[in-house]
Amino acid sequence: MKILVVNPNTSASMTNAIAETARRAASPGTEILAVQPDYGPEAIDCAMESYLSAVAVMDRILTLGEPYDAVVLAGFGEHGREGVQEIVDVPVLDIAECSACVAQLIGRNYSVVTTLQRSVGAIEDRLRLAGLADRCASVRSCGLSTLDVDRDPAAAMEAIVAEAERAVRADHAEVICLGCGGMAGLDEAITARVGVPVVDGVSAGVRLAEAVAGLGLGTSKVCTYAPPDPKAITAWPLSRHIAAADR
Amino acid sequence: MKILVVNPNTSASMTNAIAETARRAASPGTEILAVQPDYGPEAIDCAMESYLSAVAVMDRILTLGEPYDAVVLAGFGEHGREGVQEIVDVPVLDIAECSACVAQLIGRNYSVVTTLQRSVGAIEDRLRLAGLADRCASVRSCGLSTLDVDRDPAAAMEAIVAEAERAVRADHAEVICLGCGGMAGLDEAITARVGVPVVDGVSAGVRLAEAVAGLGLGTSKVCTYAPPDPKAITAWPLSRHIAAADR
Amino acid sequence: MKILVVNPNTSASMTNAIAETARRAASPGTEILAVQPDYGPEAIDCAMESYLSAVAVMDRILTLGEPYDAVVLAGFGEHGREGVQEIVDVPVLDIAECSACVAQLIGRNYSVVTTLQRSVGAIEDRLRLAGLADRCASVRSCGLSTLDVDRDPAAAMEAIVAEAERAVRADHAEVICLGCGGMAGLDEAITARVGVPVVDGVSAGVRLAEAVAGLGLGTSKVCTYAPPDPKAITAWPLSRHIAAADR
Amino acid sequence: MKILVVNPNTSASMTNAIAETARRAASPGTEILAVQPDYGPEAIDCAMESYLSAVAVMDRILTLGEPYDAVVLAGFGEHGREGVQEIVDVPVLDIAECSACVAQLIGRNYSVVTTLQRSVGAIEDRLRLAGLADRCASVRSCGLSTLDVDRDPAAAMEAIVAEAERAVRADHAEVICLGCGGMAGLDEAITARVGVPVVDGVSAGVRLAEAVAGLGLGTSKVCTYAPPDPKAITAWPLSRHIAAADR
Amino acid sequence: MKILVVNPNTSASMTNAIAETARRAASPGTEILAVQPDYGPEAIDCAMESYLSAVAVMDRILTLGEPYDAVVLAGFGEHGREGVQEIVDVPVLDIAECSACVAQLIGRNYSVVTTLQRSVGAIEDRLRLAGLADRCASVRSCGLSTLDVDRDPAAAMEAIVAEAERAVRADHAEVICLGCGGMAGLDEAITARVGVPVVDGVSAGVRLAEAVAGLGLGTSKVCTYAPPDPKAITAWPLSRHIAAADR
Amino acid sequence: MKILVVNPNTSASMTNAIAETARRAASPGTEILAVQPDYGPEAIDCAMESYLSAVAVMDRILTLGEPYDAVVLAGFGEHGREGVQEIVDVPVLDIAECSACVAQLIGRNYSVVTTLQRSVGAIEDRLRLAGLADRCASVRSCGLSTLDVDRDPAAAMEAIVAEAERAVRADHAEVICLGCGGMAGLDEAITARVGVPVVDGVSAGVRLAEAVAGLGLGTSKVCTYAPPDPKAITAWPLSRHIAAADR
Repeated sequence: MKILVVNPNTSASMTNAIAETARRAASPGTEILAVQPDYGPEAIDCAMESYLSAVAVMDRILTLGEPYDAVVLAGFGEHGREGVQEIVDVPVLDIAECSACVAQLIGRNYSVVTTLQRSVGAIEDRLRLAGLADRCASVRSCGLSTLDVDRDPAAAMEAIVAEAERAVRADHAEVICLGCGGMAGLDEAITARVGVPVVDGVSAGVRLAEAVAGLGLGTSKVCTYAPPDPKAITAWPLSRHIAAADR
Repeated sequence: MKILVVNPNTSASMTNAIAETARRAASPGTEILAVQPDYGPEAIDCAMESYLSAVAVMDRILTLGEPYDAVVLAGFGEHGREGVQEIVDVPVLDIAECSACVAQLIGRNYSVVTTLQRSVGAIEDRLRLAGLADRCASVRSCGLSTLDVDRDPAAAMEAIVAEAERAVRADHAEVICLGCGGMAGLDEAITARVGVPVVDGVSAGVRLAEAVAGLGLGTSKVCTYAPPDPKAITAWPLSRHIAAADR
Repeated sequence: MKILVVNPNTSASMTNAIAETARRAASPGTEILAVQPDYGPEAIDCAMESYLSAVAVMDRILTLGEPYDAVVLAGFGEHGREGVQEIVDVPVLDIAECSACVAQLIGRNYSVVTTLQRSVGAIEDRLRLAGLADRCASVRSCGLSTLDVDRDPAAAMEAIVAEAERAVRADHAEVICLGCGGMAGLDEAITARVGVPVVDGVSAGVRLAEAVAGLGLGTSKVCTYAPPDPKAITAWPLSRHIAAADR
Repeated sequence: MKILVVNPNTSASMTNAIAETARRAASPGTEILAVQPDYGPEAIDCAMESYLSAVAVMDRILTLGEPYDAVVLAGFGEHGREGVQEIVDVPVLDIAECSACVAQLIGRNYSVVTTLQRSVGAIEDRLRLAGLADRCASVRSCGLSTLDVDRDPAAAMEAIVAEAERAVRADHAEVICLGCGGMAGLDEAITARVGVPVVDGVSAGVRLAEAVAGLGLGTSKVCTYAPPDPKAITAWPLSRHIAAADR
Repeated sequence: MKILVVNPNTSASMTNAIAETARRAASPGTEILAVQPDYGPEAIDCAMESYLSAVAVMDRILTLGEPYDAVVLAGFGEHGREGVQEIVDVPVLDIAECSACVAQLIGRNYSVVTTLQRSVGAIEDRLRLAGLADRCASVRSCGLSTLDVDRDPAAAMEAIVAEAERAVRADHAEVICLGCGGMAGLDEAITARVGVPVVDGVSAGVRLAEAVAGLGLGTSKVCTYAPPDPKAITAWPLSRHIAAADR
Repeated sequence: MKILVVNPNTSASMTNAIAETARRAASPGTEILAVQPDYGPEAIDCAMESYLSAVAVMDRILTLGEPYDAVVLAGFGEHGREGVQEIVDVPVLDIAECSACVAQLIGRNYSVVTTLQRSVGAIEDRLRLAGLADRCASVRSCGLSTLDVDRDPAAAMEAIVAEAERAVRADHAEVICLGCGGMAGLDEAITARVGVPVVDGVSAGVRLAEAVAGLGLGTSKVCTYAPPDPKAITAWPLSRHIAAADR
């Protein structure tokens, strides 16, 4: 089985880190193909960047020219899953949703610890639309941006563990979801210090993708996620129209 | 007061129709500036097209180079409002949300009549995230695409009126919202035949934009809709990087 | 356009203050007619007073004998809107609902700062029935009654600003609604100290009334808000039966 | 124990019928005191009438001058309970809420069959605010006004039974609540024809009043339902100021 | 009237205490028959124990061989009510649900103070399924197990009163429900110190059972709670198959 | 990896069928251990039977004496998951929850087609408590009991397909979950005739168990699902006390 894991931002180092996490989580025999968009932000911390990356991700997938058995979108709370579901037939999974799914299977409720406060709303919205918010005890911010987390993992660790402890004590969370791709690898430290299971989104996404594809299931094409009807779309895919010199 | 009305698709004829509706609805003294994106679909009927148009709309607004007092996004159920709220300071209103706001002020509940069944979910999601779904009696599809409505207004009228009648009879809707920019102008026929007030989104958007801007209020910049932090964004705004030959 | 603004209590000084706020908020060309009931409480802080004022307001409107284009009910969380919607044809707006509408258009969520803790429930109920509670982060009490706010505006200011700060810090509110007619004029101080937009209900009500009436829309009469069926009603309107000596 | 049962309208024949039902439902040793307001509508089918009756009921209770152990408000979906809770210390029960309470104790869910479609919303609202809407399968209208039901009980019976059958078949209701004081006595016919238990509101109210008063409990006075603070209230109680000639 | 009160655990001292509370709460003329299961835990603090006691309770009731007019299940948040509703015809009431019912009739909202934090979820779940969670301000743990409460009533009293005070101050609870059978008798102390009415579940259950049975109503048998269809059930009732030597 | 699949009823033929389905769904290298309880009903169609089977399932697991990596409970809507989560450390998955999880990953919403109407409520309750009801379009009954489905698979097929078609047409379901263990194997027929993906619960359970156990995660033991505290439990496990002759 081959799983396409898409880092929604343009940071090659994050793509590599995500690929590594994905490979560690995958079953023997699963191949991971990790890609990133050709344009868009180097990290995603707001709606403007999220929408742009959603389009860049769809573009990257449309122009990939290689087969795969499932797609994992490695942005936590980012836009775009529904769009990708329309343009491919294989299962398309989003790591925020996969984290919540797994968390609900192993605990009564869960909290998400994410980066900036301004991203809390976006994650709450995505979980809500996915029908997975009901047992979310809280979405909490550790006060650092995605780039901060990337730059200083040790400081990030402290901030994230502190917030996870608050979620367990104050919100009675029984599972913690790491609300940012760049947080992979902190699971053990949090479990050790807070005493609850920790779900990493990329790992959860890869394993659930194996499960769904293994069941022989794909996205329902009967209505919402049917392929787009043919129509005139100016300059799409955009990547083919962005001047070579810019890239 | 000058209101920027943005048609999210690339159809010049729809931009003109929207501009006309907006001018008819505006107070004396309000100037309407109607624009459309440089790239993207000629009509929007799915998530892929909606995301693409959200980016193209942000791009168009970022590169406009002209002042205005408020923005009205003229897509019903389309993505993008939060992104535009981050990049401008004036109020940014979405016609789906404005329709629901006005409908709730004049009736106990409301139904939306939109184009294809596949768009129903997107509209439900947008109303839900906007906190305006609670008094929505139903979102109903008339079975025609945006382009169908544009091409054969007489047939569309029949289909829309029939669905509005069902909403009133079966769902006890007390107000009907026209769930597609291309439906402007059908209000009177529906009111005449179904006996309930009808809200046109573009008109509602223009009047609410006047109201909010007139109150001296702009988007709250304290958290979610603060301006994006500076960071490297490859090829953004995209319009400046799409090869001249393509346009 | 002429807007009837109804102070639900019998305090002439509050009626004057409300009229002044309404005139300041109105567009050029809008005329404000401010009235108060003939009977009922001088301020409204509980359900008993709220129900009484609802009847006194309907009575005042029924016996007014003067045309207008829209009604704004200037009580925050008070009962009565649905009753007035039945007895007049023009749009009838309630300032609690208008505040929430405007707040939702400019921020992800909002908090209300009101007078006494005992009024919190009434406001939550009204917002909930209006379908506007979903994005309400909190309704908070500043601990002062309506009369306290009226008597000592400087002390009230401090209490209200302090509570608004708590709403922003603890509840992550992005907009503050002033939950009492007597609080008009505090907007600037709160915005200056707390950094979020502040919505005054009377101002919001006037501008939304202009918007809805300007769209040519009135209350839907198809079901819930149809005129009352003719029947025997003892001593109604009550004002005509209350002994002259009492007034 | 003495229970004050208040018919919210001014129809003496309905007061008598309610008193009779209440007496039939009461335990041995319980005394029923049935009263009606001095002013207001002869039947209640809309919000205007409901608000007026709420005030007239509070007025009647304030001026009663006689002790009792609990109050049962015999209007289904009418306003006013919270106001009465503020002005008396004994338990105050509303028949819509009591019907739902009892129904939930004996079935998985329940439907209400009421009079006109325009009253459906008022009942839904009251159940919702009372926290009892979650297991309400539906509120259905039989198409007859309160006065129609009063005038032609045989025709009303047919219409109500037909609607109850629809609730059971289409909404899977397991209990039916009679959503109008004038419907008392139809229980047996519906149970016989539809096969589900039927709850009459006045009977449920009397028995629950006995239960709550028997437990030695009264309304919590700690916050929302504390007695009104003293203040100037023009012409209150209104009944003392309505000119003698009018009565 | 004879009411069967079932202590779900196997502690004879708790059965006696429950019987005493039930008798004190009952109307004159009501007979209380208190029983306990033949097998299962001596106290119930988790789901495993709760499920086991649900079966033991059904078993005890099936093999009782004595008539009664209503059943009160005296576990707070325990499983089993729906099962008992299927196997008997008379009303079956659960004390968690009865507490919430009564609390809602006398206050705007209520909080539950229960034993261990791990039981909070079970109580929230039961109230939610019963459609009674909407006006629940909080379910709070006093940190003691059921056996702790039983062993040291004085220490329990302090812990429970402290938590009730927090519920009133922080959650604005207006009524407190004692969330454990073993807490009966603390009502007065809490009311004295916290100033709000306190509902004891067993007492509420007995009085509501009298009310529902007094109305001549039983569980609806039309669908969910119809008697089980005949089928092969190995070793049921279990009590008849548990070896004599074990008992 | 070894997965323990528990048929909650005592029918050996159903245990065999479930084992077969589980083995077909499992990844290469996964071993399936299928067991059934020692006592309880041969099929489960009501709450009484469901509670009994929950206890019998816990009993069977407690007395198994063999290691495994995850547990799959193969009853759709049955009670018991939380109890098993307390008594084992490995992940414990319920097929109703797993079906909904997988369905939500591949479609906007889903419907469940189950056996009798009386089981609809139990399934709705389980999905709701699991936080998975939000995107459930409907739970529909095909009108046949579990034993009927087992006895006449051809007739069952027709009834189930017909109901699935109704779910797709009337409720706009995009995925169908088979709401009964005995329905495994109908997926292809429904997909062929209705055009939507079909999720079989046992298969989904096995694949998700592999995923969660593969991630190295187990049930959170921090609060709700901690092991039961030691205490006296009469005759537990029951299987050791049921007289040998009975078995």
